Amino acid sequence: MSFSSYVPTKVFCGRGCVREYGAAMKPLGAHALIVTGKSSARCGALQDVCAALAANGQDYTVFDRVLPNPTLACVREGVALARAAGADLVVGVGGGSPMDAAKAIAVLAVEARADEAVFAGGYGEAALPMAHVPTTAGTGSEVTPYAILTDDFARTKTSISSPALFPKFAFLDGSYTDGLPLQITRDTAADALSHAVESMLKKSSSPASETFAKESLRILYPRLKSLEDLTEETRDALLWASCLAGMAIAQTGTTIVHGMGYFLTYDRGVAHGRANALLLGETLRLCEEKGVPALGEICVACGASVDEICKTLSHLCGARENVPRETLERYAARTMSNKNIGKCKFDPTQGDVLRILLRSLGDGSFIG
Amino acid sequence: MSFSSYVPTKVFCGRGCVREYGAAMKPLGAHALIVTGKSSARCGALQDVCAALAANGQDYTVFDRVLPNPTLACVREGVALARAAGADLVVGVGGGSPMDAAKAIAVLAVEARADEAVFAGGYGEAALPMAHVPTTAGTGSEVTPYAILTDDFARTKTSISSPALFPKFAFLDGSYTDGLPLQITRDTAADALSHAVESMLKKSSSPASETFAKESLRILYPRLKSLEDLTEETRDALLWASCLAGMAIAQTGTTIVHGMGYFLTYDRGVAHGRANALLLGETLRLCEEKGVPALGEICVACGASVDEICKTLSHLCGARENVPRETLERYAARTMSNKNIGKCKFDPTQGDVLRILLRSLGDGSFIG
Repeated sequence: MSFSSYVPTKVFCGRGCVREYGAAMKPLGAHALIVTGKSSARCGALQDVCAALAANGQDYTVFDRVLPNPTLACVREGVALARAAGADLVVGVGGGSPMDAAKAIAVLAVEARADEAVFAGGYGEAALPMAHVPTTAGTGSEVTPYAILTDDFARTKTSISSPALFPKFAFLDGSYTDGLPLQITRDTAADALSHAVESMLKKSSSPASETFAKESLRILYPRLKSLEDLTEETRDALLWASCLAGMAIAQTGTTIVHGMGYFLTYDRGVAHGRANALLLGETLRLCEEKGVPALGEICVACGASVDEICKTLSHLCGARENVPRETLERYAARTMSNKNIGKCKFDPTQGDVLRILLRSLGDGSFIG
Repeated sequence: MSFSSYVPTKVFCGRGCVREYGAAMKPLGAHALIVTGKSSARCGALQDVCAALAANGQDYTVFDRVLPNPTLACVREGVALARAAGADLVVGVGGGSPMDAAKAIAVLAVEARADEAVFAGGYGEAALPMAHVPTTAGTGSEVTPYAILTDDFARTKTSISSPALFPKFAFLDGSYTDGLPLQITRDTAADALSHAVESMLKKSSSPASETFAKESLRILYPRLKSLEDLTEETRDALLWASCLAGMAIAQTGTTIVHGMGYFLTYDRGVAHGRANALLLGETLRLCEEKGVPALGEICVACGASVDEICKTLSHLCGARENVPRETLERYAARTMSNKNIGKCKFDPTQGDVLRILLRSLGDGSFIG
């Protein structure tokens, strides 16, 4: 088989790593646009980044208006601010939304595109250089070449992709996640789990992506069962596992679970990680029914059976949303137009997708 | 704990990958110096590289005079040729020796140094960009920031190191290894095993380096027991495992086994991989006696006990060289001046080193 392996981002891990290794950002530019949300200041990440930039003699402008599931309007605002400030580097601080907004700003600051062309692909190698500082353990965006944005044209979330979107540096400091509420810890951990699993379910899954995906599952899965009262060590492990899952999808991308979940987020405001958690269990059940070989490898890496994994996911989800059948039928139809669905190992049909959606979120009337 | 993870090289894997993905080299420069040994032409690698460069419209000059354990004189000759040809990129084709020579040429072509300063460290970020094409499954040099050269000042082999020495691209085509003689297959496989094990024994071993090292051991070790009549699939697996071990030492470097082995190579002409194979078993025995926890993880990844691993290594080595005790005593003393010895998890003493050397290569009079 033919495959490639590419993770050019230099990752620093450890509590205090922004202060310890922040000098690495010095050659990236003279003026940083820091892209963040309102909550990143509270965990200490923003202060650490500002202090590191100041110690490097770098100026910075803070753009802290990124909301969950960032829109193009938000990205445009960031690009305008970057230009006005003369920013020549971008630092993303936060969960997936600020980091993905930061990436889109970094590329659109150097490559002008009309709104309707933003999701058209074909990005070049040029973007402002970036450093990313995740404050949740889920997205893995700090080591991927993707930015996921709200796509009002397709009424879902859509990725833009370019090797230029790999950050130069990622700083993983688990202390920024210490104070996360349980629900966010759960949702983001489920997101990371879904990245690792979906990478394994992708046709392009390879010895390289599986090195990252399986190691992520080995670390992540056993820790999912008790996310209350986490030790610092467990927080650090979740953050590293999330980064590994990011390295896996950097090779393969995601597939069916994310493809379905984006509609729950776009249409119904379900948190991104939770959307994946709601749909992942029944996706694994379908893999079991279809005898997908990768499922066995996923279970070995998790050290758990499909039943056990589904139970863990149910526990993570708690009470499930209920979505009318006709809505789910619409989602199933729209999911089929996602370019990543056909790249799933078991070639999901629209019926397969509907089955997962009904079993995960239906009113129970569906006996599949 | 604090650690980093960095493998900026984009790795292409698969039979035919130079022809398939050689266009990736196009942006690297206009004129390539191809650095290789006499045998690389025979396996098809050199022809594939020349064809890919020609298809890219890139000129090239072939420097095929690299011998095993390259000297500074050889590197100087390559630098002179690169300058005369106006080469602005370097392609290393071969085993560790041509690849390491290529790296040294790439850095010394842009940073002039007197011979006595070559091993003094402090290299900057500048080097000619590189692509590497390994033709043995052992060195991992295609994904490391190190070049190991014969060091006539210290009468051993010494590494030079710089992030600039990471190749931009590595092309792993197992077909280039199909025709390797059994002895070279054995020696180079032992080299890769030693990289993975030594990385695990390094104090700087981390969740990142261990992701690569353990995966390398999982793939490599079970295949070491039957290196005769290899299938293409096994050849490919060995090459990927060797690359993973390279990614591991890219994070940590090597330690005691390489530190001892370089003297066997420098003084007695023992092939590099074989030198490691000769010394690795007794190093593991010493770890067992000292209760080094990493040993347990090494055994789990190999799926074998220390006894079994030592037996496999003995089989790889065949009849052992016999070295006089006083020579080994000198090697032990000189090994202690290697900067990587003190970075080994069990803090080896000179007595420890001598014990490994005597048990591995002594005349049997030593009962330790």
